[in-house]
Amino acid sequence: MTTLSVAEKLISSHLVSGRLRPGEEIAIRVDQTLTQDATGTLVMQELDALGLQRARTGVSVQYVDHNLLQADERNAEDHRFLYSGCRRFGLWYSKPGNGVSHPTHMQRFGRPGATLAGSDSHTCAAGSLGMLAIGVGGLDVAMAIAGEPMYLRMPEIWGVRLTGELPPWTSAKDVILEMLRRHGVSGGRHRIIEYHGPGLATLTAMDRHVIANMGAELGATTTVFPADAAVRRFLAAEGRDAEFTELIADADAGYDVTEEIDLSTIEPLIAKPSSPGNVVPVREVAGTEVGQVVVGSSANPGLRDFAIVAAMVAGRQTPAGLSFDVNPTSRQILADLTTMGATTELVSAGARLHQTGCLGCIGMGQAPAVGTHSLRTFPRNFPGRSGTIDDSVWLCSPETAAAAALTGRITDPRDLARDLGLTYPELRLPQHSAINTAMFVPPLPPEQAAEVELDRGPNISELPGLDPLPAQLHAPVLLKVGDDISTDEISPAGARALPFRSNIPKLAEFTFTQIDPRYPQRARDLGGGHVVLGGENYGQGSSREHAAIAPRYLGLRIVVAKSFARIHGQNLANFGILPLEFADPADYDRINPGDVLEFDHLRDAVTAGQELAVRNRTSGHHYRLRNRLSPRQVQAVLAGGQIPLLMASSATR
Amino acid sequence: MTTLSVAEKLISSHLVSGRLRPGEEIAIRVDQTLTQDATGTLVMQELDALGLQRARTGVSVQYVDHNLLQADERNAEDHRFLYSGCRRFGLWYSKPGNGVSHPTHMQRFGRPGATLAGSDSHTCAAGSLGMLAIGVGGLDVAMAIAGEPMYLRMPEIWGVRLTGELPPWTSAKDVILEMLRRHGVSGGRHRIIEYHGPGLATLTAMDRHVIANMGAELGATTTVFPADAAVRRFLAAEGRDAEFTELIADADAGYDVTEEIDLSTIEPLIAKPSSPGNVVPVREVAGTEVGQVVVGSSANPGLRDFAIVAAMVAGRQTPAGLSFDVNPTSRQILADLTTMGATTELVSAGARLHQTGCLGCIGMGQAPAVGTHSLRTFPRNFPGRSGTIDDSVWLCSPETAAAAALTGRITDPRDLARDLGLTYPELRLPQHSAINTAMFVPPLPPEQAAEVELDRGPNISELPGLDPLPAQLHAPVLLKVGDDISTDEISPAGARALPFRSNIPKLAEFTFTQIDPRYPQRARDLGGGHVVLGGENYGQGSSREHAAIAPRYLGLRIVVAKSFARIHGQNLANFGILPLEFADPADYDRINPGDVLEFDHLRDAVTAGQELAVRNRTSGHHYRLRNRLSPRQVQAVLAGGQIPLLMASSATR
Repeated sequence: MTTLSVAEKLISSHLVSGRLRPGEEIAIRVDQTLTQDATGTLVMQELDALGLQRARTGVSVQYVDHNLLQADERNAEDHRFLYSGCRRFGLWYSKPGNGVSHPTHMQRFGRPGATLAGSDSHTCAAGSLGMLAIGVGGLDVAMAIAGEPMYLRMPEIWGVRLTGELPPWTSAKDVILEMLRRHGVSGGRHRIIEYHGPGLATLTAMDRHVIANMGAELGATTTVFPADAAVRRFLAAEGRDAEFTELIADADAGYDVTEEIDLSTIEPLIAKPSSPGNVVPVREVAGTEVGQVVVGSSANPGLRDFAIVAAMVAGRQTPAGLSFDVNPTSRQILADLTTMGATTELVSAGARLHQTGCLGCIGMGQAPAVGTHSLRTFPRNFPGRSGTIDDSVWLCSPETAAAAALTGRITDPRDLARDLGLTYPELRLPQHSAINTAMFVPPLPPEQAAEVELDRGPNISELPGLDPLPAQLHAPVLLKVGDDISTDEISPAGARALPFRSNIPKLAEFTFTQIDPRYPQRARDLGGGHVVLGGENYGQGSSREHAAIAPRYLGLRIVVAKSFARIHGQNLANFGILPLEFADPADYDRINPGDVLEFDHLRDAVTAGQELAVRNRTSGHHYRLRNRLSPRQVQAVLAGGQIPLLMASSATR
Repeated sequence: MTTLSVAEKLISSHLVSGRLRPGEEIAIRVDQTLTQDATGTLVMQELDALGLQRARTGVSVQYVDHNLLQADERNAEDHRFLYSGCRRFGLWYSKPGNGVSHPTHMQRFGRPGATLAGSDSHTCAAGSLGMLAIGVGGLDVAMAIAGEPMYLRMPEIWGVRLTGELPPWTSAKDVILEMLRRHGVSGGRHRIIEYHGPGLATLTAMDRHVIANMGAELGATTTVFPADAAVRRFLAAEGRDAEFTELIADADAGYDVTEEIDLSTIEPLIAKPSSPGNVVPVREVAGTEVGQVVVGSSANPGLRDFAIVAAMVAGRQTPAGLSFDVNPTSRQILADLTTMGATTELVSAGARLHQTGCLGCIGMGQAPAVGTHSLRTFPRNFPGRSGTIDDSVWLCSPETAAAAALTGRITDPRDLARDLGLTYPELRLPQHSAINTAMFVPPLPPEQAAEVELDRGPNISELPGLDPLPAQLHAPVLLKVGDDISTDEISPAGARALPFRSNIPKLAEFTFTQIDPRYPQRARDLGGGHVVLGGENYGQGSSREHAAIAPRYLGLRIVVAKSFARIHGQNLANFGILPLEFADPADYDRINPGDVLEFDHLRDAVTAGQELAVRNRTSGHHYRLRNRLSPRQVQAVLAGGQIPLLMASSATR
């Protein structure tokens, strides 16, 4: 009898097709879905385009957490559209103010042994409860809501054995920062990270959420933890004891890749600007003046993460020139913090207490001034994601953030004992959360739902039409970019662009503008199709499918890169953009912006096999490119995307 | 011996020049100033332009409450600029998150018998403490900080005698709405409203703040209340007993105009879209569906105003499709609310708890969806001020707001007894406020201040140069507008424009665009000077001098109107725009947009006297126009504005 890891058990129990061999495409049954507002408005339009009558999943929840600023009428319009979509299609609606999707979902709906597909790259956070939770594009979630399985390439399982116990002044964030220090932003690609070992017992379920959440920054397919006593305690505190089922690895389970972390050796770490992979010990950069400290986001969402900050700043004051911003994760956590007295401690110390939500983490407000450093407990610091071009954002633990909030400088929190006479606080957290489900609006009964009309305001555009892949394509390289380009750089979030997330023609005007402000105009001037050239890990970061559909709207047909980030590669195929990898990565240097690439017999080549030949008309060179699409994805790309493919197949049925 | 009203006592004790005869210019010594961020960045630039070394007032405070969204780097840049200006010029700096200027100033610095000049139209709120508090343009505040007196035309004193006691389900907001119902948005022009009578004893100092604050909406110069036992109690609760001095009217004081309100006859009132003057009883509009309810702002800022809402919604839930937004006024009030348990009650009922500040009141976020009604406890609902063009904003009391938050419809709160079994809550408020002055950064000592450099980020522009009034002007009427045009319509606030408050060339692109999107372009195309034609009460609302300097930058030299709102008329003169009134208001109808008006011998005519003749070249008509400027203002207009005037006079000294 085989012995299985937690990841393998989760996959096996939901396997619809395929084999558990790394690299092969598998299909997995989806129990739950999660969407947020920044990706959800497209999902609703996709459900509408698919003609869905009613969600076929056990639980599907639409959260509203990303864009809550309501700088003009469009934001509230999106919220109303999402609400109407939930009523129409039978989804749960989590109202603005209810909280950030990941911790909120974990608290109310997370269930050991279940699968979750989410149109947010940090969906993997739910792995903290022994779930298989995978961030995918919006269209993949729409398909899951419609009852289709989730497709992915079977990853390797990466066993990370934890031993020891974290020292004072460090916390779970430092563990995932240590993983990023060791492996960088693409170290987890094509892998599921499974934490195990005796050190696990020292980490609460919410600590594990911190670690699982930022597995996305390693590029991992997802992260899983076992459902053990810590998960049982978590569910009990949430009043959901009955939903606990144990899920642990078999005693002698093996892993494709192995790693060990002795928690007792962890020290306070920090990711320097502008990548979550630029991790160094805090002590190496201590003394740098800080203009802003922000606490919150799905990367440090738990009551404990705020309570430790409150305990550290209690009775003290933040410096005059520093902005200390606190973003509670959910109204439940805000209620608990308030009951504990921590809200008052934070506010009295000088905190600006913001509404619950993602806020600055997605560049919706809290943009720092140019030339100032901002320390955040967030998961990402990609260039400009804060809303400030030329920003300088650092990622750290709540302890390190609180230390900077007290001193106005990057400070190793261990030095606070010496410098301020602080001892590491021992927290007394409530045994039971302030549970309040009233801001979750449940699905309407089917007969009522059928009569709901989608509430489309003037800013809710229809999805653009998508034509099939042409028989051949001779097209210029309109843009050449480097390694680790994030979807934030392809299609930005933030206060300028996010209000147009439901309006592709308008949103397209922001495409790649952080790299080349003239890209949209140049693409429109060109008229026909074009090619973008990328380096390694192209499309890392957020799951937003806007980073595919917006450039597609502008004429992007092929991306040639050294490698693709998982979700974005899938999104490209979903929207009919062909992702190709260099057979010889050195060819990347042999292509210049403006070169015209000749893809002859393109459809035939994509249909036929895994390798394509292309000629550079400008230089005369030839290159070999790899097509790593599954047969299912090939059909989508040929059709121009998943939606036209589904339309065509339903028309011929 | 003359008997004096409170207003007369305040003026007499601060009179520098002039006589207490309505209509004559008086100059008043200024004890305190208040600026906020939306007007303060210009004030700092003006102080710099004036070459000020150090503030000469007793207390000058720079608040940061208007723009706190930080949608991009410019907002934090403004905050840093203001902080550096405070350090340079010796002002107090109230950090972002500390609170809305008016209630916060009242709590920490308000002092019976003192005068306050503030670059915010709601500065008058401090009249609640027996202060003479007047909203003026930024330049007037800059001059006051530099030690100059405040100039104004001596208003009539309007005695409003209060009798009786407010019935349950009504509160102070309904009193000022009753005043607006009776007198409309220009009913208080050239008047100081002084409340007196036995009904006063039933109103706390913060209730009086509510009434004084929205005196601005009546167009009044200011509002005063006596400093009596209620003020003593207020100061005691704020730990400032020592600063109380009694200031009451002489027993037989008379008033220029008189009025009576029997508080016991007040019923719940509401201002319909889109003017604070459109007041009707709530019962007349009950049943209208509401998409948003917002509680907060300087119009209902007190602990009581939030606590009553919390008590009404406690244990209940707001409807699924409604956004219930709570903007705490200050961190002190948030701390008190939290200690009382009210924060938890609000959040548990479904409130989105926002950061402390003005927020939606100034269109910084919370914009409603088009086609939905928004009920707010705010002071203003001018068209588009919410951030949504074609908005539908209603103004009401906390009680009426809470009723709508419970039912999802405009609801007379008195009906809640019948419909929901609610009884009017009896509040138990803490005797002493949670005083915390740590977010007020005190002025630097002079020797340190002298070494501070202003922290000018890339978005902080220099003030534009202003040339003198030409000897003659033949210029077209570029725009003709109707009555009660607000400064929101001349130079909008809100999330698009406010980030450019420190950058006049950029801000100018928003001038009048709500009325005519092509105005900035047409003005630039024209090149030379132009004229704008206005109706009654031109320039009501916010004190922002941007509504003068931005059109001046685009070439506006003369505004001809039926009448001017006080602050804006003064701002026009301050920036060298000549405000002229029709001798015959019927002439307004005889001038069309595009007509060219010939102001011959313009400088001579402005210097010589109070009447000017102008010829309409297009129609051939002649009109007589009145120049109501004081000799001081005439000098400013001739010089091109106060700043060039001061420069010239200091150059010739």
